[in-house]
Amino acid sequence: MPEVSLFTLVPSTGMADDALFEFLHMEIVAHVYRDLQSLKGDTDTKDRSSRVSILEGMGYRVGQGLIERLTRDSPCFKDELDIMKFICKDFWTKVFRRQVDNLRTNHQGTYVLQDNKFNLLTQLSNGKQYLDQAPKYLAFSCGVVRGALSNLGLESVVTAEVSVMPSCKFQVVIQKL
Amino acid sequence: MPEVSLFTLVPSTGMADDALFEFLHMEIVAHVYRDLQSLKGDTDTKDRSSRVSILEGMGYRVGQGLIERLTRDSPCFKDELDIMKFICKDFWTKVFRRQVDNLRTNHQGTYVLQDNKFNLLTQLSNGKQYLDQAPKYLAFSCGVVRGALSNLGLESVVTAEVSVMPSCKFQVVIQKL
Repeated sequence: MPEVSLFTLVPSTGMADDALFEFLHMEIVAHVYRDLQSLKGDTDTKDRSSRVSILEGMGYRVGQGLIERLTRDSPCFKDELDIMKFICKDFWTKVFRRQVDNLRTNHQGTYVLQDNKFNLLTQLSNGKQYLDQAPKYLAFSCGVVRGALSNLGLESVVTAEVSVMPSCKFQVVIQKL
Repeated sequence: MPEVSLFTLVPSTGMADDALFEFLHMEIVAHVYRDLQSLKGDTDTKDRSSRVSILEGMGYRVGQGLIERLTRDSPCFKDELDIMKFICKDFWTKVFRRQVDNLRTNHQGTYVLQDNKFNLLTQLSNGKQYLDQAPKYLAFSCGVVRGALSNLGLESVVTAEVSVMPSCKFQVVIQKL
């Protein structure tokens, strides 16, 4: 077959690249919820928690892979707080396309990361009627954070909550050995 | 809890952003294969084709969403070939981070897109022993292309094959009404 020249078009339009990740994430959530429902036919609590843990587990492994790349050439971190700042800034920017707006800590291993415009919630409507849908869009992200921290030597429990969309609060509790 | 200042770190390191999509894609493939196996306990041909079609379907919807954003401000396309060039250049760059290396067509609705370093295969080893694993990493991408074309008014059948990793050939056959 004859070859076609590809180099006569105008340059790329510069659309924000984050759409790919957002769309893919939406599909994964939809798949995990639809798939388990159709295959198992139940919607009880056990089922819901298994969906959340599937998404969390996928996020965990993605977080591990990403932080490995991101910190390959980075200097060592001073301490736990230094790691958390890195997560809130560099890591958050790579994954969620913006920095955390606010980081609070009790200096005893508990951190609250507030993102006022969380990337993976912005495609949902702001209406209150979608608030109950929000948790399923946060499980993957909690896993991402937990996976990243784990690769940096910090075992943690990560949870998230939404009060007003698309603002989101992640709580990280470091597990001391 | 007291607030921590986030603005004392050095700027972001500029790591390639594609890793997020690559990792997420690997997770989806692993999940779809693992999940169906554990839930249904069979590995027959029907099962394999249902996995491929799950991945293809996810790709299809992601492709539709992406092309909608990408072409929002674009002028109309002249013809089918013009659309295919857009897919090979702008669209491919957004999704797979590089342009198609080579586009061939018989000018009767069949197109062969060759990508010599296909993004979603580069994480697999180059060894021949992984060649049989390649198809499951292509189903999502075939769907992405089919979804994008469908949104531009072209119904198609999209298949892909690998002969030498990570080089990949996509064949698009436009379905005339």
